[in-house]
Amino acid sequence: MSHAAIEAANAQALQRLFAARPFWTGVRPARELLPQLAEGTVLHAGPPLSWEATCGPLRGALEGALQYEGWAADAASARALLEAGQITLRPCHSVGAVGPMTGVVTPRMPLLVVENREYGNRAYAPLNEGLGRVLRFGANDASVLARLRWLQDVAAPALDAALQRAGGLDLRVLMAQALLMGDELHQRNVAASALVLRALLPHLVRVTPAPEPLAAVVDFLSGNEQFFLNLAMAAAKATLDPAAGIPGCTLVTAMARNGTEFGIRLSALGERWFTAPAPMPQGLYFPGYSAADANPDLGDSAIVETLGLGAFAMAASPAVARFVGLGSFAEARRVTEAMLDITVARSPHFLLPTLDGQGVPTGIDVRKVVETGITPWINTGIAHRQAGIGQIGAGVVQAPLACFVQALEAFAAIWEEEG
Amino acid sequence: MSHAAIEAANAQALQRLFAARPFWTGVRPARELLPQLAEGTVLHAGPPLSWEATCGPLRGALEGALQYEGWAADAASARALLEAGQITLRPCHSVGAVGPMTGVVTPRMPLLVVENREYGNRAYAPLNEGLGRVLRFGANDASVLARLRWLQDVAAPALDAALQRAGGLDLRVLMAQALLMGDELHQRNVAASALVLRALLPHLVRVTPAPEPLAAVVDFLSGNEQFFLNLAMAAAKATLDPAAGIPGCTLVTAMARNGTEFGIRLSALGERWFTAPAPMPQGLYFPGYSAADANPDLGDSAIVETLGLGAFAMAASPAVARFVGLGSFAEARRVTEAMLDITVARSPHFLLPTLDGQGVPTGIDVRKVVETGITPWINTGIAHRQAGIGQIGAGVVQAPLACFVQALEAFAAIWEEEG
Repeated sequence: MSHAAIEAANAQALQRLFAARPFWTGVRPARELLPQLAEGTVLHAGPPLSWEATCGPLRGALEGALQYEGWAADAASARALLEAGQITLRPCHSVGAVGPMTGVVTPRMPLLVVENREYGNRAYAPLNEGLGRVLRFGANDASVLARLRWLQDVAAPALDAALQRAGGLDLRVLMAQALLMGDELHQRNVAASALVLRALLPHLVRVTPAPEPLAAVVDFLSGNEQFFLNLAMAAAKATLDPAAGIPGCTLVTAMARNGTEFGIRLSALGERWFTAPAPMPQGLYFPGYSAADANPDLGDSAIVETLGLGAFAMAASPAVARFVGLGSFAEARRVTEAMLDITVARSPHFLLPTLDGQGVPTGIDVRKVVETGITPWINTGIAHRQAGIGQIGAGVVQAPLACFVQALEAFAAIWEEEG
Repeated sequence: MSHAAIEAANAQALQRLFAARPFWTGVRPARELLPQLAEGTVLHAGPPLSWEATCGPLRGALEGALQYEGWAADAASARALLEAGQITLRPCHSVGAVGPMTGVVTPRMPLLVVENREYGNRAYAPLNEGLGRVLRFGANDASVLARLRWLQDVAAPALDAALQRAGGLDLRVLMAQALLMGDELHQRNVAASALVLRALLPHLVRVTPAPEPLAAVVDFLSGNEQFFLNLAMAAAKATLDPAAGIPGCTLVTAMARNGTEFGIRLSALGERWFTAPAPMPQGLYFPGYSAADANPDLGDSAIVETLGLGAFAMAASPAVARFVGLGSFAEARRVTEAMLDITVARSPHFLLPTLDGQGVPTGIDVRKVVETGITPWINTGIAHRQAGIGQIGAGVVQAPLACFVQALEAFAAIWEEEG
């Protein structure tokens, strides 16, 4: 395949990325949206893996999820079902979804629906549970399950009704605005969460019975500064999906981790995963924890970096730079600038106020990654490596080079013979 | 007075500025809070002035205010009352209040109450009306008066009830957070307005009847990105007041404009004003308007610059820098850095994320202003110079040097003989 043909394919992918118009349009039970999510099937983050290969936090989340669904009465019987192969594990990405950290989704869980109004495709993500003891980090006690049931029974119907009245919310506009307000839309979603609350509120107060459950839903939304993360992920997925499957295109369309392996997808190679062992994040730990307790990198949230947000937009978010262990604004800027070396364009929508409105680096080209040896930076939460504990810190990680090398080799093997 | 005695006085003033804890504690009718605000009395922004000296937008606001109070049936009869000297004009600052632009406050208008919990003093500001045709910019038609009545009858009681349930809101914390989110708290209050909405909401939904008036109050709050400005002004006033009246202190404790004159107060010289003609702002105009339509600089909002926010914090807010006609982040940074030359400290609370967390320049020293010839920068709205029209743009202005020179001369005349 000629250089010019690859450039044309990449230009077409970029055009689709930049034309995307992701709207948050609903919150519906997963089983209603995804026929693939039959009883006994559970979604997880990252590339596919067997039960035997699962990491501690994913096991913790799976044990909790089986109890939440009523498939098991306790953690031990959940574990027995999983060990007996009675549960089907599928990647979120295989059904158009993305989930942060363990990414566990079961049929009764509500999913955020994001529709790309330019192309008509949809992407899904679970509701962000908040901080503290949460399923996505592998915690699974009674408080975790009670919150999941409240999200299902109370929050999801209220949010869905508000969205129907609103006619959907334009996420690209909200995300662009949040970048001007110090969010990088991975580790920090303070502004975006406040803006989406502000946008939804006039509708929420008109369709939700008051004082309850309105007050409880308002408490949940106003108390969760990471609420928007899952919307940013679904928006990124809905934006990137139309750029997948373009013949000859060398752009990366997904990066995701299951806590054991780190995987990427290449546009030209469709849904095929290229994987390498998940790296260990570097970061800051909550009191009482250290790197020795950390699980390897985990979650579908790297979809936001795949679009040029998160660590790619670190210059937007000096506060995050410090939080993830970078000392100065200059260092934050260097992370963003390094990502320019492995991408093909700057976003015309997502602008960096501290860099005079230049766009975030967008369109990771596997050829540039392999040529430079520079791999994508990713901002991330850090889970305890044992089941049932939860978040212990936050930090940064660099994607492993090996999966990019494999992907480029596979690309070359297919496209050179057709060139 | 010795140099050391002045430094000690300034250090004491700074200590009071930095110890201040301004909380939003209520919204009450002005006449309930201010016994000085008798029937027939109207407050205005800036230093004192006679009816004859008033500018166009202040005349427009006064004509509207008299109709709002029921003291006049129409603009013509309002004008007649004013011309006949039947109305007493007083500066907001003379009663512990601050008002943006024309700053007009009458007895029935609700005022935000901000209490400095460290020193027990209070400051007041009217509710921000939103954008478009509003009294503070000199508009006075039926829609302007109807909104003022709605604020009085509906919004103010709802907000006050929510605040009582909340036990007050810590404004210093909200303002510090907003600076990390691209606000400079004068021209841009997007983040602060969203954060205060988020903080008040759990209380608001529990004390306000639903669906109405809750829905209308939520619409007002979520639709007004400058809602927080008036809170920032009252917080700045409540913070600065305890630093006023310190013998030997050369710090500026107020800057305010009435559209005709620009005035400052010096700590050592208490409530005395030093004035010079109000300068013309430089900025961007709404379509159809130009500098020829602009009124000279107007409003008490420069109280936020007096505390080190607004233009002093321009580096926090690259988006504002462009809006007010500065081209780049580097230029925004230069405005903040220039203000370091005329201030004595950096705030330990209000930090600039783009400058690696350094504090905003705080404590304008009249000696430094006169020595360097550099005067404070101020971000500002621009009003049409005729009564009844309203806002036509936004921009920046530099305070006139003459009032600082007068203040320093007066300081020297008093304190040198006691030295």
